[in-house]
Amino acid sequence: MDNLTRLGIDIGGTFIKFAVLKNGEILYKDQIPTNQESDIKLLGEITEKAKEIIKDYSIERIGVGVPGRIENGTVLSGNLPFKYTPVEKILKDAFSPIPVTVQNDANCAALGEALFGAGEKCENVVLVTLGTGIGGGIILERKIAPGNKCMGEIGHMIVMAKGGRECPCGLSGCWEQYASVTALIRQATETALLNKQDLLYKKYTENGEKLDGKLIFDAFDEGSACAVKVISDYIDWLKVGIESLVKIFAPDSIILAGGITKQGDKLLGELNKRANIRETKIEISHLQNDAGSLGAAML
Amino acid sequence: MDNLTRLGIDIGGTFIKFAVLKNGEILYKDQIPTNQESDIKLLGEITEKAKEIIKDYSIERIGVGVPGRIENGTVLSGNLPFKYTPVEKILKDAFSPIPVTVQNDANCAALGEALFGAGEKCENVVLVTLGTGIGGGIILERKIAPGNKCMGEIGHMIVMAKGGRECPCGLSGCWEQYASVTALIRQATETALLNKQDLLYKKYTENGEKLDGKLIFDAFDEGSACAVKVISDYIDWLKVGIESLVKIFAPDSIILAGGITKQGDKLLGELNKRANIRETKIEISHLQNDAGSLGAAML
Repeated sequence: MDNLTRLGIDIGGTFIKFAVLKNGEILYKDQIPTNQESDIKLLGEITEKAKEIIKDYSIERIGVGVPGRIENGTVLSGNLPFKYTPVEKILKDAFSPIPVTVQNDANCAALGEALFGAGEKCENVVLVTLGTGIGGGIILERKIAPGNKCMGEIGHMIVMAKGGRECPCGLSGCWEQYASVTALIRQATETALLNKQDLLYKKYTENGEKLDGKLIFDAFDEGSACAVKVISDYIDWLKVGIESLVKIFAPDSIILAGGITKQGDKLLGELNKRANIRETKIEISHLQNDAGSLGAAML
Repeated sequence: MDNLTRLGIDIGGTFIKFAVLKNGEILYKDQIPTNQESDIKLLGEITEKAKEIIKDYSIERIGVGVPGRIENGTVLSGNLPFKYTPVEKILKDAFSPIPVTVQNDANCAALGEALFGAGEKCENVVLVTLGTGIGGGIILERKIAPGNKCMGEIGHMIVMAKGGRECPCGLSGCWEQYASVTALIRQATETALLNKQDLLYKKYTENGEKLDGKLIFDAFDEGSACAVKVISDYIDWLKVGIESLVKIFAPDSIILAGGITKQGDKLLGELNKRANIRETKIEISHLQNDAGSLGAAML
């Protein structure tokens, strides 16, 4: 590791996180809310905040993680108000002469985990982020994998070639149709509605006729047979994609991230028991929400 | 490209291929049969042949492609009489002071295709070899992908998570259980036995109660309804894995190799029509059996 003073910026849908790193140590951490109004406003607020930090810490490198498809520093699409926005160029102009690099946020998070988190001491790591969909970050030999910047859409590996659920991506049977948190909630809701005597249905009605990941695991903890079944099936779907990733990337470690991984051993214990993956370890993110900004700092 | 004189050696199950390259031009090409008796005899014959070539061409670099799992130049397993054989060390000693690098043969073939064949001008390439199983070679930014040397077992991506065929690898529903040539022949044989009036069954009996890839396509050409159905289904299975690879690696090109790709447009035309893969091209190997030795030379 070099001894440069580095600023990492992780642009998320709700918060923008900032972290200053030197020699692998965190000197500063903060966040501001994400202004979703326009790309200009969003980048303006980031620039303002970053300029303060640059002044205080004599920053020598800036790395930025952005969700969505990125090509040559331009964000093509994603959940933020970026559409063909040349984010890297704009920030380079703003912070000149400090070098600025923009990367996909999942790759930044994977790099953060590989360098400072659950993947420490691992050469090759796949980060699997479970949420609305499934995101992926791929680290090979302790660096973000080379190749096309759009690489790593692991949520769209096809795991059910016949009779698979349709995915908005245009394919059918994509992994995230079965193993995202969205899929877990959908499956739990369907099961609850068919089993109105079960505790899971009670949770569903008490919560205004909707479920979330936490409620499903709460029902599991309180002995709901439906929740036990739904979570067990969910773990089977997780397992399948993880086994494929192990064959494709042969990583030292598969790291799971996202709010649902707070359930810890309820997920990990069973997954490790069922998955047929030889030398690869499955782990849960250590850094969670900080992985992105720490990884971005190291770009 | 540098202007070193390079020797590439591709160790296959039947033949060992040698190629001398300089400035991307082939100066020499030859092959010898593979001595499967023992690792010592096999490496002895390779060394003898290579020493002649080294003398004639003042070789400056040697690259060797070997099927199977390789770690730090040691071949752990595979179809050749290698079992924990330190192939790289043995050949380094034999050819000292010329540098020797050993790599997985699928990666060598992918590199050959990316530099000199169907993937020329592509940055990122996945080579898919259709045969007894499905092999994969992955090129990112015109180099063999970094990471674990065992990476790229794309034939074992799980494409049928529920009710999938068991695979000797220990998983179920692996891609190669549906899209390898073995799988095509199995499916064709089952279909022929259920449709004894069909031309495919005639081919089967005339050939001593067995089918091969060529016979199936011959039946297709001659109008067998069974062959049409079997090949159409086969292309659907190919499509599924290719779509997953496109999501995972976002390559410029997916290159298909193996004897069956001689069928050319009968495979490729339909595949291109059915696959949902945006910017990626699907192509057929230009170099076929020469890809491995040419790629090995460039290691």
